Amino acid sequence: MMLAHGLRVTVSDPQPDVESRVRRALPLIAPALRALGLPVEDLDARLSFEPDLARAVADADVVQENGPERLDFKRQLFAAVEEAAPAGALLLSSTSGLRATDICQDMRRPGRLLVGHPFNPPHLVPLVEVVPGQLTDESVVTEAVAFYRALGKRPQVIHKEVPGFVANRLQSALFREAVHLVAEGVVTEAELDDVVTSSIGLRWAVAGPFRTFHLGGGPGGLTDFLEHFGRNMEAGWAGLGHPRFDEATVRLLSRQAERDFGGRPYQELEAERDRGQIAVLRALGRTPADHGSAH
Amino acid sequence: MMLAHGLRVTVSDPQPDVESRVRRALPLIAPALRALGLPVEDLDARLSFEPDLARAVADADVVQENGPERLDFKRQLFAAVEEAAPAGALLLSSTSGLRATDICQDMRRPGRLLVGHPFNPPHLVPLVEVVPGQLTDESVVTEAVAFYRALGKRPQVIHKEVPGFVANRLQSALFREAVHLVAEGVVTEAELDDVVTSSIGLRWAVAGPFRTFHLGGGPGGLTDFLEHFGRNMEAGWAGLGHPRFDEATVRLLSRQAERDFGGRPYQELEAERDRGQIAVLRALGRTPADHGSAH
Repeated sequence: MMLAHGLRVTVSDPQPDVESRVRRALPLIAPALRALGLPVEDLDARLSFEPDLARAVADADVVQENGPERLDFKRQLFAAVEEAAPAGALLLSSTSGLRATDICQDMRRPGRLLVGHPFNPPHLVPLVEVVPGQLTDESVVTEAVAFYRALGKRPQVIHKEVPGFVANRLQSALFREAVHLVAEGVVTEAELDDVVTSSIGLRWAVAGPFRTFHLGGGPGGLTDFLEHFGRNMEAGWAGLGHPRFDEATVRLLSRQAERDFGGRPYQELEAERDRGQIAVLRALGRTPADHGSAH
Repeated sequence: MMLAHGLRVTVSDPQPDVESRVRRALPLIAPALRALGLPVEDLDARLSFEPDLARAVADADVVQENGPERLDFKRQLFAAVEEAAPAGALLLSSTSGLRATDICQDMRRPGRLLVGHPFNPPHLVPLVEVVPGQLTDESVVTEAVAFYRALGKRPQVIHKEVPGFVANRLQSALFREAVHLVAEGVVTEAELDDVVTSSIGLRWAVAGPFRTFHLGGGPGGLTDFLEHFGRNMEAGWAGLGHPRFDEATVRLLSRQAERDFGGRPYQELEAERDRGQIAVLRALGRTPADHGSAH
C-alpha cells in the first residue's frame, strides 16, 4: 500500500532472504492493487532493503514495526529506533496484543509511539486500529490517523488499551458461539459460514451492529429496539456456549475444515475470497482510490 | 419475493387495514426488487386478501405464517390451518424463537410443519433458516428447501432446535461484546460500526468465520490456525464482557444512537443501507436473479 501510494519504503529485517521474499510477493499482490484502482507500475522502484536498523530508520518519517509479538523484543527495538530515527518520526507498532504503554517503557520520548494495528491482508482490509498509550502525544495520534488516511486506509482510534482491541474481540466473541454450534452439531462449519455470508455478514459489510439495530427499531431507533428485544437478548446471552479448544473439539473442527474446505487448493480459496473482497469494496465505493469520497 | 417470482399470494390477517398497508408497501419495495433483477410489473395482479383463514388456505400449496410470537396462538393457528388446507400443503412458521416440535402439538399430521425463519428485510437478506421439529417429515424439509431456493433465497437447514437458531445467536454473541466495549468507553457506537464495516463485516460478507480462519492458518488451514492462535483466543474469551441492559446502559446506548444516527431521517438511513446491500449482492452475484449460478 505504501509503495502504491508513492512512498519510499526501506525494509529492515535480520532474515537474509527477506529481499527475495518481498520481491517475489510484490507481483502477486499487484493485480489486486490494480483492481483497487492503485498504480502498480515500478512498485519496487522506491523499495530498498537495509538490515542495519539504525541506518534503515535514519531518515524515516514513519517507522511501522512488524516484529515478533514479544514485549521485551519490542521494548528494545523501539529504544533503538528512537536513538537512530529523526526526532519527529512517527513510530508505529503493528502489534495485535501489546500496549503502547508497555512497549514504550525504555524510550526517552515515548510520546511518539503508538499502536497501528492492520489486518491481513492489509491491502484488502481497510481498517487500522490506532491505539495510543497513556504517554502518546495527542498530536501524534492525529498524525497517525492522517498518515493511514492518506494511504486510503480506514484508521479508527481506540480510546482504551483493552486486550485484543476492538475488531479481534468482536470476532472472537462471534467465533466462540460458532465453535459451540458446530461442536453441538447444530450446523457444520460450511453451513455456519453460509448462514453468516447470507445474513449478518452481508449486513455488517454495509452497516455495523448498532446502526443495524437502530434501523431494526423502526423510526423509534435503537431505543425502541432495546425496549422490544433487549430483555430477550439479555436472556439469550445466558444460553450462549462456552466451548474450549480441548483435544476432541480441535479434532472435530480440523476434520470438518479439511472436509468442507480442504478439497480445493489454498491459493484457489484465497484468490476467490480476495476477488469477492475487491468486488465488495468497489461496489461500496470504499477502495483506497475512492478515499475521501463517500462513507 | 413470492409475487415477484410469479406466485399467487393470498394474505389472511384479521386487521382491517392490512390490504391498504400491503398495497402501499409494494411500490416502496418495487425499486429494490427491480435493482435485484426481478420483474416488478403488475406485482399486485396475483395478490388477494381473505380474512377468513379457512378460505384463505383452502387451495394453498404453501402456508407461511407470520403471526404473533406466542406458542398458544401458533398451536391453535396451525391446528386450524391443517383442517382447511390441502393435505399436501407445506406449512411454514416464520417464528424466530419457537420450536416446530412445540407448535405442532395440536396437529393431527405434524410431519408437514417446520420453521422457515426469514430475516428483515426479507427481499434483501437471502438467508432462511429451515428448522425441522422432531416430528417433521424428512421429505418436507427437502420440499421447504426447494421452495425457498426457487424464490432465489439461501435456505439453510438447522439440525437442532436450539433457541435463537444460528444467525441470531451469532449476532447476539457479537452484540454482547459490542455493548460491553461501548459501555466501557473503548469506542462509541458509530466508531464500533466503522470498525466492523471496514474489517470483519467486509470479510464475512464474502467468507464466513470458519473459512476466514481456515485461510488465516495459511496452507495448513484451520488446523494450523487453531494450533497457533487457539490457546490465545480461548484465554481471550475469559476476558470478554458481560454487560446487562440495566437502566444506565440502556440510557447510554440510546443517547449515543440518537447522537450518532438520529441526525438523519430513518427512511434516509434505511434507503442508504438498502442501496449498499443491493450493491454488495450484485457485486457477489448473489441476487435472487443470479440464483443457481455462482456461490
